[in-house]
Amino acid sequence: MEDNASPGSHPRVVILGGGFGGLAVARGLADTGARVTLVDRRNHHLFQPLLYQVATAGLSAPSIAAPLRQILRGQPNVTVLMDEARGVDLSRRRVTLDRGMLDYEVLVVATGATHAYFGHDDWEPHAPGLKTLDDAFTIRRRVLLAFERAEREDDPAQRQAWLNFVVVGGGATGVELAGTLAEIARHTLPREFRRADPRQANVLLVEAGPRLLPAFAPELSEKARRQLEKLGVEVRLDTSVTRIDAQGVMLGDTPHAARTVLWAAGVAASPLGRQLGAPVDRAGRVLVEPDLSVPGHPEVFVIGDLASVTQPDGRPVPGVAPAAKQMGRYVAATMKARWQGKTCPPFRYRDDGSLATIGRMAAVAQFGRLKLSGLLAWWVWLVAHIAFLIGFRNRLVVMLDWAWAYWTYQRHARIVTGADETATLPRDA
Amino acid sequence: MEDNASPGSHPRVVILGGGFGGLAVARGLADTGARVTLVDRRNHHLFQPLLYQVATAGLSAPSIAAPLRQILRGQPNVTVLMDEARGVDLSRRRVTLDRGMLDYEVLVVATGATHAYFGHDDWEPHAPGLKTLDDAFTIRRRVLLAFERAEREDDPAQRQAWLNFVVVGGGATGVELAGTLAEIARHTLPREFRRADPRQANVLLVEAGPRLLPAFAPELSEKARRQLEKLGVEVRLDTSVTRIDAQGVMLGDTPHAARTVLWAAGVAASPLGRQLGAPVDRAGRVLVEPDLSVPGHPEVFVIGDLASVTQPDGRPVPGVAPAAKQMGRYVAATMKARWQGKTCPPFRYRDDGSLATIGRMAAVAQFGRLKLSGLLAWWVWLVAHIAFLIGFRNRLVVMLDWAWAYWTYQRHARIVTGADETATLPRDA
Repeated sequence: MEDNASPGSHPRVVILGGGFGGLAVARGLADTGARVTLVDRRNHHLFQPLLYQVATAGLSAPSIAAPLRQILRGQPNVTVLMDEARGVDLSRRRVTLDRGMLDYEVLVVATGATHAYFGHDDWEPHAPGLKTLDDAFTIRRRVLLAFERAEREDDPAQRQAWLNFVVVGGGATGVELAGTLAEIARHTLPREFRRADPRQANVLLVEAGPRLLPAFAPELSEKARRQLEKLGVEVRLDTSVTRIDAQGVMLGDTPHAARTVLWAAGVAASPLGRQLGAPVDRAGRVLVEPDLSVPGHPEVFVIGDLASVTQPDGRPVPGVAPAAKQMGRYVAATMKARWQGKTCPPFRYRDDGSLATIGRMAAVAQFGRLKLSGLLAWWVWLVAHIAFLIGFRNRLVVMLDWAWAYWTYQRHARIVTGADETATLPRDA
Repeated sequence: MEDNASPGSHPRVVILGGGFGGLAVARGLADTGARVTLVDRRNHHLFQPLLYQVATAGLSAPSIAAPLRQILRGQPNVTVLMDEARGVDLSRRRVTLDRGMLDYEVLVVATGATHAYFGHDDWEPHAPGLKTLDDAFTIRRRVLLAFERAEREDDPAQRQAWLNFVVVGGGATGVELAGTLAEIARHTLPREFRRADPRQANVLLVEAGPRLLPAFAPELSEKARRQLEKLGVEVRLDTSVTRIDAQGVMLGDTPHAARTVLWAAGVAASPLGRQLGAPVDRAGRVLVEPDLSVPGHPEVFVIGDLASVTQPDGRPVPGVAPAAKQMGRYVAATMKARWQGKTCPPFRYRDDGSLATIGRMAAVAQFGRLKLSGLLAWWVWLVAHIAFLIGFRNRLVVMLDWAWAYWTYQRHARIVTGADETATLPRDA
């Protein structure tokens, strides 16, 4: 199926990926003559910064996901296709999809990154990562079922193994998951079990490097560690995970029994990056030109987590939502300038600050030299995340959910759906 | 594992099933000395009357489901076990679970019903039914993906097959599903597709009997039919479905191409009913005594959709939520009376009226001789369903969702998650 073969004078733009980057390109091309096709293998844009809240039963999935068609319905020059890109033929300027192909004059690749196990793919079934809504449901199911299993277990060691949680990776996602798990065990569940005591849960956060949140200033890393410990999380720095299986994790040479292990340790770029034939870094990110185009192919842009961009001061542009959005807006502006015969200055990343939440009334924030932690940072985090959510309804519902959770300590999305993988574990596993 | 073996003078009550019936028994035994164990294979109570709204992307799952533990947390005499009952040994008074067994002095079986294909189990993959949250996700995914497939289809006949929806069964669930599908096609989606026109969707409601909503008065059945047709649903009465496969349905001898078929035609009682060895009716429901106990076993009660109860006027008690709740309360009261050496009068069903919604501002309601339809019935339906939802938060969120949906025609849970079954269909299927 030739999806956009009709001839015309308006440039044909194909965008692969409907995340923060791809969506910003499509929106930036509103009110232009460009015929835009946005391809995503999912039907929704996901507000990934709050995905850990779905995984920990604090928010329902529709609160942080909106159909791409609905977001772009007001832009008649955009066609949304739910499909997956399998390859790009740069010389023929054609993208191969699962169900057809697309010719382009300008291509924007914004397919992001996924979690990666660095050569340990056998760890995946034992330590799910967190990139999609289905990942979040898997984590939610495992965490909730672990407490159910603990309640049914007579053997004290086995029971404790069900109450032991390990989060691998001390970046923002790992810190958020660990802090929230501790809160669930200490505050949400205690009165609800009759034999297992959820307060006996141990949440262990393991980081291979010397500090948590390496993207932040060292003093904030230290504050984050102390806030986590206050919430009941056990933090282990400079500690490598050498094995993960159904029994738990191996920390160096020491086994640590845990039936629930969550992976927040690393991401790898979408395989489409290598497919382009352009130079990539170790994580598979494309080393783009200063205008975010692929070397030798000014008509192909790579943005967001898939792009490796170095700032003038030598530091890399971080793989965060604001950077992806800025790249998307920049690429749309560059296209428009080119169509008018003009040129654009190179892409510059504007650091609007970094935020990471840790748990109830605890967060860290960094805006240039201004560093915040604790309650004030938590409020900033709260307001910023509600403000950037797409859709008026979602903002309202998330505010309501958070207010309710704050006062009651309850988490409203505590429902187990989908197949129970733990049921298939051998009884002595 | 012996789950309640500790001796004591307080009666041991085991309740199988945490639906409306089982939950009413547990709540009715608050402030008694009874040691109650409630067993459910899911961790949540489901507000089933609104399940079709999850299936049609109007509500998120957590809005209509609450963890059983959370509902019962204030009742220290209740232990909740997430497990599945496999059998009952009436002579030894013992229940076998997947992960252990439970001795009882009083047993309440409230495991309900599930959808059934009446000897056509091969229809199930092509025509999902609606009883659990996972069922609702399956239907939501299929419906949303059908429009996505239509958008990608060049062949007009194939495209129309993706836009043809068939709902089998004209009871409350079938009417609700058909009405909502028509609303989605006509009002929610039209501006969002560029090639397929969602307004070309055909929603066909097929009922084998002579009228819709047989539980209502004939004039309301007729009103429901007219309201559905006004919403754009094609209603076929006196029409039998003789085959369902990947191509669509066979109506008598006439094939009707449709890629999406939903099953709302019949339910069968939980297999635990036959397991009891008591007399059952054709649907597998247990023919209970006037006090809802099993013949010959006054210590075993069967309630809710699993019980076959005849009212003094000869009519059966309907399989609806209010009836299950009343039976649960009655059984709790009967137990308490017996423990005090008293007896209870037979169970009497109090008909509080019937309600069925059809679509935007359209419903039918029947309270004794009072019959309502249209806007007024819709308001009654709305208020009743919000009032009976469990949890203050859920009431607030559902109200907000409905108000938003009403003004915008949008449905906020339009996200596709889980595996796409349609991708595995052969291209010429």
